[in-house]
This record gives sequence, structure tokens and C-alpha cells, in this order.
Amino acid sequence: MKKRIAFIGVGLIGGSLALAVRQAGLYEEIFGFDTDHENLRQALDLGVLDHGVSSIKDVLESARLVVIATPVGVIKPVLQAIKPYWNSDCVYTDVGSTKQSVIRDVEHVFGELPANFVPGHPVAGTEQSGSVAALAELYRNKQVILTPAKTTSISALNRVRELWEQGAGAIINEMPADQHDQILAATSHLPHVAAFALVNLLSKNDDNLDYSRFTAGGFKDFTRIASSDSEMWSDICLANRDYLLPLLEGYQQELDSLLSWLNQGDKQQLKSQFYNARKTRQHLVSGNPVLDHNKTVETT
Amino acid sequence: MKKRIAFIGVGLIGGSLALAVRQAGLYEEIFGFDTDHENLRQALDLGVLDHGVSSIKDVLESARLVVIATPVGVIKPVLQAIKPYWNSDCVYTDVGSTKQSVIRDVEHVFGELPANFVPGHPVAGTEQSGSVAALAELYRNKQVILTPAKTTSISALNRVRELWEQGAGAIINEMPADQHDQILAATSHLPHVAAFALVNLLSKNDDNLDYSRFTAGGFKDFTRIASSDSEMWSDICLANRDYLLPLLEGYQQELDSLLSWLNQGDKQQLKSQFYNARKTRQHLVSGNPVLDHNKTVETT
Repeated sequence: MKKRIAFIGVGLIGGSLALAVRQAGLYEEIFGFDTDHENLRQALDLGVLDHGVSSIKDVLESARLVVIATPVGVIKPVLQAIKPYWNSDCVYTDVGSTKQSVIRDVEHVFGELPANFVPGHPVAGTEQSGSVAALAELYRNKQVILTPAKTTSISALNRVRELWEQGAGAIINEMPADQHDQILAATSHLPHVAAFALVNLLSKNDDNLDYSRFTAGGFKDFTRIASSDSEMWSDICLANRDYLLPLLEGYQQELDSLLSWLNQGDKQQLKSQFYNARKTRQHLVSGNPVLDHNKTVETT
Repeated sequence: MKKRIAFIGVGLIGGSLALAVRQAGLYEEIFGFDTDHENLRQALDLGVLDHGVSSIKDVLESARLVVIATPVGVIKPVLQAIKPYWNSDCVYTDVGSTKQSVIRDVEHVFGELPANFVPGHPVAGTEQSGSVAALAELYRNKQVILTPAKTTSISALNRVRELWEQGAGAIINEMPADQHDQILAATSHLPHVAAFALVNLLSKNDDNLDYSRFTAGGFKDFTRIASSDSEMWSDICLANRDYLLPLLEGYQQELDSLLSWLNQGDKQQLKSQFYNARKTRQHLVSGNPVLDHNKTVETT
């Protein structure tokens, strides 16, 4: 029998992984299921899948590895649909942007986190969606976080590691699910909320000013993530709200400080904060050391 | 005598314009002055200028057009230095990110806005700075805003229009200075403040979480503008605080709403706001019509 991988959900994330796995030759057969029939058809047309099937039962059959690549908001019903066909020789993983919520959903459906379910999340993507946006190279040299539990089987974990490393050229990180959620709340979920809020504010343009001609460079990049899918992102924010809420409050405090320095005309404080942001960003994006906050700021 | 243009300040903005003007052949001689001698030397080495001079007096001599391309925070002392050599046959313009503050500075120094001073602002740039970052194509098909007064001379205005259109391939917009400042507060100054604040929050990482490996795509773009120069941006924010402060307050209200919907688990409201943001951004960046806020949101 051919070595088979199955995808439940063949959008940007699942479709890109399927394309990468095909190029790497890691599996001999790639099956896919998607509730969006048009999307599934496109995935077949684009060669993302070998077989597109119309039921969960059919996609699971004889699969060695099942990748649940749906938005986190629908993982629970997907798990309920999988449950009757659960196979202890198969390994299951997901790609959800929040990991504690997925584990809670798994535990809700199965009473525990099964040893052959490995929670995962590739830290990559674009603001696009659908199998038409799939890219075989999406995960190359990108970080993937796996959050196995103590009860997770080593062989199941290795099968998922192999999927991402050999199948997609990604870099694996293992960490507890709560740590994943805490980090992603800061580096991904809060930035999305901040961008959505800013663009919403600009939609309330009571003076009907023509903003659209003057949204060059900075604005375009800053707000790119505000073009992300609203269904998916409302689910992610709610699923991770325990970490997102305190960060959002912290963000408001930062804005409060800037607002009060602006009010007071305190250039030194503004400049010092802007400088600290610049240095911090250099560290976060390039891996250079963070500047000591107490050091003198530039004086040019 | 050769047709001469002079730049006071030869950083990214002035240097890029000088390069463009040279390529277009609009002036025969390009003079430059900069208080940063190393930067001036690099501008000469890179062919941005024909002549680098060490005094304001020398750079102004015989110039047909003078471009003040310094940060807005130092425009007033520059104007004071220019004043003794003011020439009514010459045209003066600036590139400052805020226009009312520049006009106030001009009026403070000259008692009025002279008919041969045309306030301007190219809506373009990168987070880089210095003449080494100059790009001849920086302004091609980009918007430039001129904010002439009723007393501005038509021939002076035309000389500055020619500079940007024929010299740099840019698109000219004319509007009142207050309208410029109001638009840029929304599309540029607020996004910068929002990005600075977010990165500052992440610098206060009390749990010492390793954010730096997980700052892919979205984060990098969202925070790119937080790498901008802190001196320049504290000046810009202060110069335009009358428009920036109410927007910052509006932004906090948007965040308050999102925070409260998150707290209440109100997915419909979150999704509706995220969807509105997505549609608004599409309009702002591509020029499509803004979605009616009251329309039903997507239900997929």
C-alpha cells in the first residue's frame, strides 16, 4: 500500500504543506478534504493533491499522517467527525495558531490528548487564503512550533518532525502550549488587533479626507495584516484572549504614556521611547542584542 | 552661468531628489550643504552632488532653487541662517513631514510666508537615512503635496512643480497646509506612533520569552516603521500634535471596543470590525470604494 498523507482543510496553510511534501517526495499519495468544494477543485487542478474526497471518512482511510489544517474555530467539529475513525497507527497533527485552545478541544472530544496527536503551528503565512495562494516554499527555513505533552508518543512526534523538516524545510521548536500562546499573542495576535483597530479608525473619516492617495510605503506595510481573514482572526483572538487581553492593556498603557508626553511636549521622553523601539525591533527581527533601556539615547 | 539647484540637508530625502534631478538633467549644477560632514562626503563620493560646501552662504550663492531637506525640527535655525542671503529671484521649498509647523517657522523668521517659498512634502521614503540610502527612483509615481498660500507666486509654484514632476517623476497634489497635516496624521504619524508603542511593549518582556525567532512576515512588516529615526519622529509628532492627539484618542477608543468584545467573547462584533478593517484597507491601498459599514459581514 502506498504511503499516504491526508489533509483536512486545503487552504493556504494545508495546501502549501501538501505542495512541499509532494516536492520532497515524502509521501506517495496526498489526499485532501475541504468543505469548500470550489477550493478543493482548485487544489486538484493546481496539483496540490492527488485525490480530493468528499467525506472525512474517505480522507482518513489508510492515512499514515493526518494534518488538520482548518481555522482554529472549526477544529472541534472536525475532531468530532474524525473520532469514529480514529486509528492508533495513524498520527494526527494540526496547524492552529493557538495551541491551548486546540488541546482543550481535543481533550473535550477525546477525554484526553491522545498519544498520537501532536499539536503544531507553522509560524508562516501570508494575508492571502485558499489553495490558489499555496506556495511550496512557504515554510522553507521558517519556524514551526510543536507543543507535545508528556504523554505524546515519541514516534508520533518524530513523524510530525519529519513532515516539517524533511517535507517542508522548516525549523522545529518544541515548547509547552502555554508558552507558544504567550509568545504568539505578542508577536502575532496583538499586532493584528492593533492593525485592525487602526484601519477601522481610518474608516470613520468624517471629514471625507482623501487618504487613499497618501498611503505609501509605511502605511501599506503597517496595515497589511489588517487584510487577514476576519473569521479566522476573530477565532484566534478569542481562543487566546487570556494572553491577548493583558497585552492589549499593556499596549494601551504605552499609548497613554506617548499621549501624555505629546500633550506635555516632552520631546526627550518621546525620542527615548522611539529610540528604544527602534533598537528593540532590530533585535527582534535580526537577533541582535536588545539595547539596555537605561543607556543614553542618540543625540544627533 | 549654469542653472544651479542647492540642497540644504543631503540625507535620504534630499539626496534622492538630487539624484533624480541629475538623471533628469533638470539643473546643470547641484550644490549641497550638510552639517554632517561624513554624510556630505558620502554624497559627493556617490555622485549625489557636484559640490559639497561648508556654509549656508556658499550653498545659496547663485542658486535658482533651494530645497531645504532637513528634519522639521531644525527648519527654524536653517531659515534664520538663510535669511541674510534671501534672494527674491530664487525659489525656496522644503520637504518637511508637517506643513503648518514649517509655515509657522517661516512666518516666525520672516514675519510672513514669502511669495517665493513653496511648502512641500514628498509622501515617500524608507526607514533608512543618510545620503548612502538615496535612490534616484524614490519619488517616481509617488505623491508630492504642495501647500502654497494665496500669496505664493505662481512662477515660484511652477518652479517647484517642475522640480518634482520633470525632475523626479512624482505626482503633484495641492492642498491647504492644515488638510495635509490632518491626512498625514492619519496615514503616517499615527501608524508610526502605534508601531513604536507596540515594539516598546515587547521590549518589556518580563518573562524573557524568545520572541525573536517568531517575528516572521506580519510582525516584520507591521513594525518596519518602528525602525525610523527617533529624532525626526519625535519632532514630527510634536509638530503635528494638534491633529495627532485626537486620532490617538480615537485609536484608544477602537482598542477599548475590541478589548471589551474580547472580554465578552463577542465574536460577531470582532469579526464585523475585522472585516470592516479588511475592506477599508483594500480601499485605502488600492483605491476601491469603501464598504458600507452597515452591510452584512461575510458569514463563511
